[in-house]
Amino acid sequence: MKVSDATSEGGVLRRHFPDGVFSQNCPSRVVLEHVTSKWGGLVLLVLAEGRPIRWSELRRRAEGVSEKMLAQTLRTLIEDGLVVRHARPVVPPYVEYSLTPRGQELAEFFVPLMSWIADNAAEIVEGRP
Amino acid sequence: MKVSDATSEGGVLRRHFPDGVFSQNCPSRVVLEHVTSKWGGLVLLVLAEGRPIRWSELRRRAEGVSEKMLAQTLRTLIEDGLVVRHARPVVPPYVEYSLTPRGQELAEFFVPLMSWIADNAAEIVEGRP
Repeated sequence: MKVSDATSEGGVLRRHFPDGVFSQNCPSRVVLEHVTSKWGGLVLLVLAEGRPIRWSELRRRAEGVSEKMLAQTLRTLIEDGLVVRHARPVVPPYVEYSLTPRGQELAEFFVPLMSWIADNAAEIVEGRP
Repeated sequence: MKVSDATSEGGVLRRHFPDGVFSQNCPSRVVLEHVTSKWGGLVLLVLAEGRPIRWSELRRRAEGVSEKMLAQTLRTLIEDGLVVRHARPVVPPYVEYSLTPRGQELAEFFVPLMSWIADNAAEIVEGRP
C-alpha cells in the first residue's frame, strides 16, 4: 500500500497519541469538536479570508445558521482564542470578527482540507448508493 | 496583516465558492459534515495509519463511541467511498476496515489538522475563561 509521510507506519499522530487512543478527556478532543462542529468549521472558513467580517455577513455566508447558533459558535471560538471580536464605536456602532494569529494558523490547515472536499464532494455524493 | 497563500485576499476557497456562501444544498456541506462529524473524524484518523483495523480496535480507539454510532459512522464513510470493509472468511470470521485511495487522500489533509490541534489543544483549553 502506498502511503504518504502523513499517514505512514504508525502515523504522525502516534507522536501525540502514543497508544493510538483518542481519549475522551483529552483537550484535543474538545478542540477538535469546537473546530469541526457544524457551524464552527464554516465560521472559521468564512473568516479565513483574512479580513474582519460583520455578523450579518457571517450569518449570510454560513448559510442556514440561526442567530442563536451563530452567537454560541462565535462565543466558543472566541473563548478558544481562535476568533476576536472588534466593537466599532462609530454611528451606528457595529461589530466585526476576525481570526487571531492562532486561528489563522489553524485556517492554514483547514482551508486545504475544505478545498479538497470541494474538489471531491460532487463525485462522492453522486457515488453514494 | 500577514496572510499566507491559503488564506490570502479572497481566499483559495473563492475558486470553489465564488460568492463566498457555503450553501446549504452544496455537496461540499454534506461531505464536510460526514468527515467532521464527532465520530467520522476520529474513525478517519484511526484508519489513517494505513493498515486494516478491526471493529473492536476502532471501538476502543475512538473512545466513547457506541456500537450503534460506530456502525452508522462506518456505513456513511463506506457509502462516501472513503472507507472499505473487508470480510475475512477465516474461522472465526472477522471484518476489518481501511481507507480507500480517496480516503487516504483526505487523510493527508486531515492528519496535519489534527496534529496542529494536538499541539495546541492544551494551551487553548487552559486559556479558556
